[in-house]
Amino acid sequence: MRVHNFSAGPAQLPLPVLEQAASELTDWRGSGMSVLEDSHRAKNFAACAADAEATLRAVAGVPDNYRVLFLSGGATGQFSAIPFNLTAAGGRAAYLNTGQWSAKAIEEARRQHVEVEVLADEAASSYTTTPAPGSYTVPAEAAYLHYTPNETIGGVEFPDVPEAGDVPLVADFSSSYLSRPLDVRRYGVIYGGCQKNLGPAGLAVLIVREDLLDRARPDVPAIWDWKVMAATDSMLNTPPTFSIYLLGLILHWIQDTGGLVAMGERNEAKAARLYAAIDGSDFYANPVEPRSRSRMNVPFTLADPALDADFLVGAHEAGLTNLKGHRSVGGMRASIYNAMSDEGVNALIDYMADFERTRA
Amino acid sequence: MRVHNFSAGPAQLPLPVLEQAASELTDWRGSGMSVLEDSHRAKNFAACAADAEATLRAVAGVPDNYRVLFLSGGATGQFSAIPFNLTAAGGRAAYLNTGQWSAKAIEEARRQHVEVEVLADEAASSYTTTPAPGSYTVPAEAAYLHYTPNETIGGVEFPDVPEAGDVPLVADFSSSYLSRPLDVRRYGVIYGGCQKNLGPAGLAVLIVREDLLDRARPDVPAIWDWKVMAATDSMLNTPPTFSIYLLGLILHWIQDTGGLVAMGERNEAKAARLYAAIDGSDFYANPVEPRSRSRMNVPFTLADPALDADFLVGAHEAGLTNLKGHRSVGGMRASIYNAMSDEGVNALIDYMADFERTRA
Repeated sequence: MRVHNFSAGPAQLPLPVLEQAASELTDWRGSGMSVLEDSHRAKNFAACAADAEATLRAVAGVPDNYRVLFLSGGATGQFSAIPFNLTAAGGRAAYLNTGQWSAKAIEEARRQHVEVEVLADEAASSYTTTPAPGSYTVPAEAAYLHYTPNETIGGVEFPDVPEAGDVPLVADFSSSYLSRPLDVRRYGVIYGGCQKNLGPAGLAVLIVREDLLDRARPDVPAIWDWKVMAATDSMLNTPPTFSIYLLGLILHWIQDTGGLVAMGERNEAKAARLYAAIDGSDFYANPVEPRSRSRMNVPFTLADPALDADFLVGAHEAGLTNLKGHRSVGGMRASIYNAMSDEGVNALIDYMADFERTRA
Repeated sequence: MRVHNFSAGPAQLPLPVLEQAASELTDWRGSGMSVLEDSHRAKNFAACAADAEATLRAVAGVPDNYRVLFLSGGATGQFSAIPFNLTAAGGRAAYLNTGQWSAKAIEEARRQHVEVEVLADEAASSYTTTPAPGSYTVPAEAAYLHYTPNETIGGVEFPDVPEAGDVPLVADFSSSYLSRPLDVRRYGVIYGGCQKNLGPAGLAVLIVREDLLDRARPDVPAIWDWKVMAATDSMLNTPPTFSIYLLGLILHWIQDTGGLVAMGERNEAKAARLYAAIDGSDFYANPVEPRSRSRMNVPFTLADPALDADFLVGAHEAGLTNLKGHRSVGGMRASIYNAMSDEGVNALIDYMADFERTRA
């Protein structure tokens, strides 16, 4: 019996992907070994990694002048790697602060001796808003503009891509990676951990414009040197091979289910139904301004927080798990990433209505 | 049909571990989800990580004043993390250079502004030796002494633990991790990637003495800040959860098959048989001085390198894979880590004898 798993990450994966991985876990491609056991330099694995990259390029529409890197250490590692790769110590960079993940990225940039200019800070709204286009100006001398398209904790998502002019735009897509079509050309760097929309924890995927590979500090740690990683096909050291394999399976699943256009439509529809259920009730509430509501992470509170524990117990009994909200926001959070089915969202909506009817 | 896989890493895993992982890949512990899908903050996964740590402590005999950390980025990441955690920029550290992995660790330390003193450099022997005890003196002012107990590429292993006095000893155990009993108290820091003896690629395990957690530079990148990682049970950010789960299964397998004493005896016997076969033949040769021969990685050459390709083809047909030597050494390399069976080593020895008889 599979549950509907609303975890914010690591998160639900497509069942066919798990079934395929299970079926070949002791004998992969007739090799007599698991993909977990093969050398990263072996022919089978090299083909597997190349296929994952090619499928990512096809699904996301990555232009030829961008490199795709498979890296360790998640997005948090890249918070440090970005300054090392894009600015000198003492250099300036611009950040938009729309939640806890932006704030962590800012903290790491400062730790790596970047003069951070925060162009917009949504802390005053308790992170329930995104800055309106035109409400800030990106300094031309900034090494880059960093933002977080979707904030997992606050459930806040930019409705549009920020305008950065000639300043390279750097985006932490961890919690909305490949959840709908995107125009890679608008970005200098796209990165994120895979553990929400694209697979297991332990792998970050970075898409970087080639002309940005020449800006690293001499003391960039080797595993974060994007230029070296590009030159070695992300195999300077042993990459997280099983994670790359699973990423490939998931990318094929995205492709086979209609690609990013279809994925975006399904995600849009799932989120719209759930927000409609919340807005249509006096018992449930979501605090985010409507234009900035996330299509991936839907936090909601109950009118009476004393009922939170009962809500969670009943949900678990109904096969709806990991709905507890982040400790900093409280209430509930339903993460409805790519692999969350219509059926799962509908079951949650039905349960919410039942709970309200019987307990409110 | 499973092959005997002599890959230097990622490497063969115990079949029972793979079978268990496969059997619960869509429903783990009756949770209705995969371990891949559970939140790292969820009760089931927290118990899984705690069990992996407790089993590691039991198997390796880790004293209470040492912390165990699960980290991303492999040993290569730690090459950078070590200077950040143990020295100021401009500080001094001592290294022993016994092969390509030591040399990379030295290069990274220099990149992170460490004054590296190489106390012994075995490059002159083409990395076929280790320094004799007493042949070098560790400067008392060194922040640490770093060495590589086993060099995967050269097939060179220290027969003894270097004497470092009061200077903390730091050891990259990647390719001999938990392959035999060790006395943790002799070390300040033990670390290594898991992808040879302990599981999948993408996870590094670090064992650090608590008093060394207060020496980090202010600008240590967050995911490499050992003190922060110790304070957060290695969950500052999302850890590589599936890798930690597999590590736990493998540690239980080590425990169930007799622990490190039995493991060390089996590994010793496997290596002794293979070296005896090489030494008993004029057709095969191993270049390493006998006292420093690795019990994990056994490089050997054929008297006629023109036969290398045929040897590999025949081996593959006999179900013996990934035997090609490292490009820098040539010939063959048989990696015989914990999970390599007696049967596998015997099959290799038989094949070598057959090949010599029919082709030499």
